[in-house]
Amino acid sequence: MAKKVSIKDVASAAGISITTVSQILNGKGDRFSDATKKRVMQITEDLGYVPDYSARRMTGTTPPVIGVIVPKLSNPFFSTFIAGVQAKAYENRAIPIVFGSNQSTSLESYYLKVLVQQGTDGIIVTNPQITHEAVNNVLKKNDIPYLLLDQKTPQLNDDHIGIDDYLGGELVGKYLLSKGHQRIAVLKPESMTNNISTRMSGFLHALLLKQIQVDDELLINTELSKSGGYDVTDKFLATKATAAFAINDEVAIGLLRGLHEKGYQVPDDFSIIGFDGIDFGKYVTPELTTISQPVFEMGELAAYIVLKRIKHRNLKPQNITLPLKLVEGASVKDLDTLD
Amino acid sequence: MAKKVSIKDVASAAGISITTVSQILNGKGDRFSDATKKRVMQITEDLGYVPDYSARRMTGTTPPVIGVIVPKLSNPFFSTFIAGVQAKAYENRAIPIVFGSNQSTSLESYYLKVLVQQGTDGIIVTNPQITHEAVNNVLKKNDIPYLLLDQKTPQLNDDHIGIDDYLGGELVGKYLLSKGHQRIAVLKPESMTNNISTRMSGFLHALLLKQIQVDDELLINTELSKSGGYDVTDKFLATKATAAFAINDEVAIGLLRGLHEKGYQVPDDFSIIGFDGIDFGKYVTPELTTISQPVFEMGELAAYIVLKRIKHRNLKPQNITLPLKLVEGASVKDLDTLD
Repeated sequence: MAKKVSIKDVASAAGISITTVSQILNGKGDRFSDATKKRVMQITEDLGYVPDYSARRMTGTTPPVIGVIVPKLSNPFFSTFIAGVQAKAYENRAIPIVFGSNQSTSLESYYLKVLVQQGTDGIIVTNPQITHEAVNNVLKKNDIPYLLLDQKTPQLNDDHIGIDDYLGGELVGKYLLSKGHQRIAVLKPESMTNNISTRMSGFLHALLLKQIQVDDELLINTELSKSGGYDVTDKFLATKATAAFAINDEVAIGLLRGLHEKGYQVPDDFSIIGFDGIDFGKYVTPELTTISQPVFEMGELAAYIVLKRIKHRNLKPQNITLPLKLVEGASVKDLDTLD
Repeated sequence: MAKKVSIKDVASAAGISITTVSQILNGKGDRFSDATKKRVMQITEDLGYVPDYSARRMTGTTPPVIGVIVPKLSNPFFSTFIAGVQAKAYENRAIPIVFGSNQSTSLESYYLKVLVQQGTDGIIVTNPQITHEAVNNVLKKNDIPYLLLDQKTPQLNDDHIGIDDYLGGELVGKYLLSKGHQRIAVLKPESMTNNISTRMSGFLHALLLKQIQVDDELLINTELSKSGGYDVTDKFLATKATAAFAINDEVAIGLLRGLHEKGYQVPDDFSIIGFDGIDFGKYVTPELTTISQPVFEMGELAAYIVLKRIKHRNLKPQNITLPLKLVEGASVKDLDTLD
């Protein structure tokens, strides 16, 4: 069986000492000739030598590791978020380690512990399925900087970035009202994370301002996925609503498909609005109207803040809210316009 | 600044020795009372103690770590693959560490080295952007078991799983011919990985059997993404082809959108077939016809084989080809049918 290539192998192949090789590879080889340096680099490459992590960790020359846990890798919202984290991490020569918890609290806890065990320097958790207290219990007590995204009530002493979900919900409500919709169904998960219940509150408030109550029968529980939206097509039809607010774009795309298969036209027969602004929303017919979140930038910023916190533990808590915007596709009809 | 919770803290809080705590946490505490075991577990939980990874590694009780590198996390094909790897890894209490290389050779090399530095036990790379030789140079020399997916010519001594891309390409060619299409454009990347060029060969061979040459002007180079497909809509129209073979589903979905925006109907005006079978293909209009790969199972199998190889270095090379199937959506028209 082959053995891991060691610095000793490089040194003996180059006919020089281990110390010399180590100094050259760590960029501290100024006193050696260019020929020697070039030879060491070439031999390192040829032998496939990779400096050992734990050894480098002890000397403090190892790059910081950031753990990232998202509920669902296959939702483009989260994969775009991760792309943002990776871009910023690479820029800073940090290492992002990504886990998808598949919306399971036990997998999320497992990965959190795994990250602590691996000696992660910082952690980002988006839409945590477990409670803030559970995260605190593992991370705060082990003194690992972390950032939780999409928490309604960030602890005062924690870093926080997110969007204004209340405003997002309000935007949806006001927009649909402005298009003449008053009977609006909401497709949402049965168990709501903080950010989603805040989004709901903003929406309900916008309607209440116009004296519109949203009956319980208009609230449809389903899974946060395309098939979740698709599966409740009949339930949506039963509400006799003129429009649906799908709590995320994947659910909206599923409902769109379900209505299409039953022979209904969107937006002529029913209007749909989503939330997130995932790129697939531009490729369905009709193009989806939605509230767009700057998700790539959120990923970049999350990595930036965690890296900053790793270096500067005493920095005051960072609290950043990123802007939202309504993106008009073609999935909402103006009921006040004459056909 | 808080200090990382140590086993010493647990021991002193419980009023027992470190050895006792260690034995209980490692499931070797049979000789202690249930009350003691329960107290240790409770204190471990309360203090948020997580056993140290490097310490456990030395005693051989640490779970295996599998690194996974994919070219693009935001393509649902790869995120579904990862879900398969994660499921099998969790089942075996292994830790999957995922990186997206963003189709960049330098990021791919960087992550490979990072994984070696981190002391990964095994590695899975799908659609490697760098050469087999480059991977060999880093991994084989460091004696790390690995699996490369979608390589046309696996080395005889390596493990290999994949689909029969040649057959997949042939299936596409024969299907379009059977529907009366003879002038077919191919949307593909300029620089083709092994699996994609094999797919092309199978397709071209199916056409050659019917004495149909594919002119260069029918080969359209573009990026492997939805916007890549969208961007070459005009180029596709210029070919006067009746059908397009998009080398993956994302490209097909982009072209579909481009044609729709220009007022063309698919499949009435043009037919489109993709490759992969991503779930979004079912949510576009018309539903996409494609070659479906069992991607979740590929992920599970990849993890299974790497884990097996980590334990049994001398196992003979595993070589598994998974089945493909044509999934008929509604994006291909039969030209021989009278309207």
